[in-house]
Amino acid sequence: MEITFAAFPGFTALDLIGPYDVLARLPGTSVQFVAAESGPVTDSRGLIEVPAARSFAEVSQPEVVVVPGGAITRRMVRDGHPLIDWLREVHPHTRFTTSVCTGSLLLGAAGVLDGLEATSYWVAREQLADFGATPLDERVVERGRVITGAGVSSGIDMALLLVARLAGEEAAQIIQLAIEYDPAPPFDAGSPATASPAIVAAVRARVAANLAAASA
Amino acid sequence: MEITFAAFPGFTALDLIGPYDVLARLPGTSVQFVAAESGPVTDSRGLIEVPAARSFAEVSQPEVVVVPGGAITRRMVRDGHPLIDWLREVHPHTRFTTSVCTGSLLLGAAGVLDGLEATSYWVAREQLADFGATPLDERVVERGRVITGAGVSSGIDMALLLVARLAGEEAAQIIQLAIEYDPAPPFDAGSPATASPAIVAAVRARVAANLAAASA
Repeated sequence: MEITFAAFPGFTALDLIGPYDVLARLPGTSVQFVAAESGPVTDSRGLIEVPAARSFAEVSQPEVVVVPGGAITRRMVRDGHPLIDWLREVHPHTRFTTSVCTGSLLLGAAGVLDGLEATSYWVAREQLADFGATPLDERVVERGRVITGAGVSSGIDMALLLVARLAGEEAAQIIQLAIEYDPAPPFDAGSPATASPAIVAAVRARVAANLAAASA
Repeated sequence: MEITFAAFPGFTALDLIGPYDVLARLPGTSVQFVAAESGPVTDSRGLIEVPAARSFAEVSQPEVVVVPGGAITRRMVRDGHPLIDWLREVHPHTRFTTSVCTGSLLLGAAGVLDGLEATSYWVAREQLADFGATPLDERVVERGRVITGAGVSSGIDMALLLVARLAGEEAAQIIQLAIEYDPAPPFDAGSPATASPAIVAAVRARVAANLAAASA
């Protein structure tokens, strides 16, 4: 089995590496990165590199697709992007099409979420309605062969569920223990429902600044 | 402020990228990667690359050090490694010396944990006693300016605590919400205390196989 990560310059590192380090542990599975052009693709800070062995044009029948997010996704949706065109073409044939964080906006722009319930990064979630989707305030939303995750760190939860679907719950539990995923956040601020209003406002302001920078 | 990640070929991707995506979000902070030689350093699967801008010899006074783990750490401890020598030299001057997963074995080999309580990947935790440390079954152990995390995914929890120490709890909560770290694992198998005996045995067998491959 092959897991295909759809990469683009400016992806959020943890969006992609969380699911990568879960899915690559599945026995008999290989992971590949594809992008608009083959070659190295760097994250939002220009530091972390993933190697796109092939371009979108060279991968027409991916089995399982994972799409990370990033501030740049809004510009990709606004201006169009080869990744969105590729998703539109390949999705009818995939076994699973999945996203982390604002990767769901790319799924939406490709028509994948039309008429479906889905989730996204909390700041962007309502934007899913623009694509005919019903936004849900859930960590991971599975609807048939489309699985969407909430913000950044949710990719670990999403990928463990995906492993369970691909190979069974025992396989997923083995990987969960292998990465010792027994989370213990030091604060209870991981959701806008539990964070203080000041923290929520601070993150909204930062996201707005990041979006402005990514759109420039 | 500068956060220095001590990289080595064969690091576990999520060990490093979890803390990276937390710590790089701290305003006024830059991250750098250092390694035995400057240049790209690849993860255990030879796919993910981090750019070591400088070699250990060129970084003599790092402020905050983060050391990831990987199966290769056992060979590094057995055979000696420039990272261990560097840790021994720089630790007396750091503000914080920290590790994720079996990165704590490298701290131990450098003498950093002598007489301290510390944690590590659950499979390797007892090995900390070889370095004069007292192993604790905890997600994150903070003793003065030495902070150690449990396996792989614990680096997110460790890094959030580190941010709180460096910049206050509000700064840490902002980052926790920014990465929507409100974990919801689909199974309760993230610790050997909650996973079934069959799952624990399966992970032990896989780790043994990984260690054998990494030692060869």
